[in-house]
Amino acid sequence: MQSDEPSRPGSRVDPWRGHYAARAAGMVASEVRALFAVASRPEIVSLAGGMPNVAALPMDALGALMAELVAERGAVALQYGSAQGDLGLRETICEVMAAEGIDGHPDDVVVTVGSQQALDLVTRVFVDPGDTVVTEAPTYVTAIGVLAAYQANVVHVAMDDAGVVPEALAETFARLAREGRPAKLFYTVPTFQNPAGVTLTEERRPRVVEVCRRAGVLVLEDNPYGLLHLDADKPLRALRADAPADVIYLGSFSKTLAPGLRVGWALAPAAVREKLVLAAESAMLSHAVFNQLAVDRYMRTQPWPEQLGNFREMYRERRGAMLDALEKYMPPGVSWTRPAGGFFVWVTLPEGLDSKAMLPRAIQSRVAYVPGTGFYANGDGRQAMRLSYCYPPPERINDGVRRLADVIGAEVRLRDTFGTSARADSTGPQAPGPDQA
Amino acid sequence: MQSDEPSRPGSRVDPWRGHYAARAAGMVASEVRALFAVASRPEIVSLAGGMPNVAALPMDALGALMAELVAERGAVALQYGSAQGDLGLRETICEVMAAEGIDGHPDDVVVTVGSQQALDLVTRVFVDPGDTVVTEAPTYVTAIGVLAAYQANVVHVAMDDAGVVPEALAETFARLAREGRPAKLFYTVPTFQNPAGVTLTEERRPRVVEVCRRAGVLVLEDNPYGLLHLDADKPLRALRADAPADVIYLGSFSKTLAPGLRVGWALAPAAVREKLVLAAESAMLSHAVFNQLAVDRYMRTQPWPEQLGNFREMYRERRGAMLDALEKYMPPGVSWTRPAGGFFVWVTLPEGLDSKAMLPRAIQSRVAYVPGTGFYANGDGRQAMRLSYCYPPPERINDGVRRLADVIGAEVRLRDTFGTSARADSTGPQAPGPDQA
Repeated sequence: MQSDEPSRPGSRVDPWRGHYAARAAGMVASEVRALFAVASRPEIVSLAGGMPNVAALPMDALGALMAELVAERGAVALQYGSAQGDLGLRETICEVMAAEGIDGHPDDVVVTVGSQQALDLVTRVFVDPGDTVVTEAPTYVTAIGVLAAYQANVVHVAMDDAGVVPEALAETFARLAREGRPAKLFYTVPTFQNPAGVTLTEERRPRVVEVCRRAGVLVLEDNPYGLLHLDADKPLRALRADAPADVIYLGSFSKTLAPGLRVGWALAPAAVREKLVLAAESAMLSHAVFNQLAVDRYMRTQPWPEQLGNFREMYRERRGAMLDALEKYMPPGVSWTRPAGGFFVWVTLPEGLDSKAMLPRAIQSRVAYVPGTGFYANGDGRQAMRLSYCYPPPERINDGVRRLADVIGAEVRLRDTFGTSARADSTGPQAPGPDQA
Repeated sequence: MQSDEPSRPGSRVDPWRGHYAARAAGMVASEVRALFAVASRPEIVSLAGGMPNVAALPMDALGALMAELVAERGAVALQYGSAQGDLGLRETICEVMAAEGIDGHPDDVVVTVGSQQALDLVTRVFVDPGDTVVTEAPTYVTAIGVLAAYQANVVHVAMDDAGVVPEALAETFARLAREGRPAKLFYTVPTFQNPAGVTLTEERRPRVVEVCRRAGVLVLEDNPYGLLHLDADKPLRALRADAPADVIYLGSFSKTLAPGLRVGWALAPAAVREKLVLAAESAMLSHAVFNQLAVDRYMRTQPWPEQLGNFREMYRERRGAMLDALEKYMPPGVSWTRPAGGFFVWVTLPEGLDSKAMLPRAIQSRVAYVPGTGFYANGDGRQAMRLSYCYPPPERINDGVRRLADVIGAEVRLRDTFGTSARADSTGPQAPGPDQA
């Protein structure tokens, strides 16, 4: 953000403040967004953002391929396309999903601006104001943002180290039905979850789907990290693989190739897919044909499996650096998850510490993270934080975790001396003031 | 659409039909969309789609520039970006808008997936279900789609050859206020309007803005064609130029460069802009950085004014071919607009003819157009159609208009013989059946 808003005339009074839609009240700046600016300062080790390391891509091959694409198919690549997306790319996407056991048809794929837009479109098609959507606790921060923008009622269900607990999910569905606000959707990141870094076990997967099926709840499986498995030889089987009529699957090339092309997708049952295409047309007419053809050409002509293998190796090393550093530096009372893939470790602080209140001191100590509260719709998460190992090189990760451990240690001493560590007020520095809400 | 849906098992019954949001009922297939497939058949002259002729772009320069971009700035271009959009591109956008008299600040620009997404985001931020939005009659077809998806109440105001009539606008605002459903937004394409091909005169521009200001109605100025002026030496002054606090301006590179990169924008008062950024973040995290940097690099390094001049020359020739052919071939009783820029001519048929009912016969005669009903929210427009001269070369335009004139002539004879021409039923072939609604 380059904003110099406060100094510009007239920018403090909004003559249109009485005109906004009710949903605009739910559009509030996310904590991750505020931290993007911080993360870009070079002296700070950012363990905050979930940015993949795109510098590891074969830039020469990518550039050459784009030049070829314009030369050979420019009149198509630079033109409007269909709202559903390019057929060739949709075929390629089905091949990608096959690795996770999914037998998808290109007709049932809708190409979107990252899986974020797919999430937005699914919510648009299904969620009326006040509708209940169940998510894991914690859950993906911007999913909370989308659900808030559509005025959904978000209800969390607990996870343990094996992912969401099927019994807890069933109980929540039953309670919500009794309360007259039955769940419509279950939004889940079952594999290498963002932010918790846990994975729903193979044993629980059919049980979770069955619980949803019995309750008449549509599953929204968001799976951007599934192919970034760092321990197993092959990817886990997606929920969608065994329940094609009950699951909308969201996928993305953002983590397995590059986010800057913004190519994601939804795979949905035919009737739902048709609605998503109409929603996509209304939202943007069509996604960039150039980007779709570039991704498709890359996937068809370049050694993507090899590149993906390099990515896995890189992230495996960084995960190792983070887990080693946590083990080495963290004071007693701090615990964390051990992800089998993806980008994230979820850290739980000692009793009485507040990750949001602590953040300014961490940034002062040149390390950034995302406070846990951003991943809950209900204000929980103060005692937790998300750390990312995807972006900084291993030695920087080590430095960052060491700095963070020092900050936590100082907080613990403060708590032990004064009976409490500093606390943020109830809204925190990133929350909007009344003028913005 | 490659759909073979009817033959696939299970695709006829939608188990989730009870789950959709109320707004999904407003998501119906547009007639333009259904015609995209038709337009691609080579034997048909399509005067239907509004696709710019991107084949006229300097493909070599574009391809080379993209390869350079990846080589020099790949780690940025392929990464996530800010929800507001790249600052350099926003500066360039302000320079583009300056040609229309706009003194915009890069801070107040939000980059979007074409101006279509800007329209979607503005509607998202302002329109609650049942809110009233006033538009010209006829108006841009997909604006009607967006407004329907947000459950707006669309009210049309008449245009004449000088654009929307300020007195009619004032009367409509007053009537709506009396009826307890005051207008929130006035959506307008003042320059080279899609679909009518008319332009709001300089004399009327301040009057229209003043009518809106007095009624407390925010103006949404959609201006994708402003730089494609075919008669005047320079572009018209935008509504936004003289009313920065009262107008949200939507712009696009889709017609002046290429739609396949999907780069458009909104320029909005600061407080509104901040809401649009949050809405953009929720909708897609960020637009493709690659596309933004490619457009910016093109604008900064290539002779864009010259390319735009070539575009104008090409479209001027095509407009001439269409107007000449209309003059030459159309039977008595047919009238049409004479656009001073943009892509479209609005044709009014003789009394008793129905452009929607006639369309299958026109396609049989190897010419396509968009029936007028698509451009009205209220079912009007049966006696009108939109013709585009942007895409086919002049001799094809001539052939297409001649074929169309023959079809109209046959309809007139049918009317004169039987007292009526064939009529479509009340929903028409592209409207959704009950299962889709």
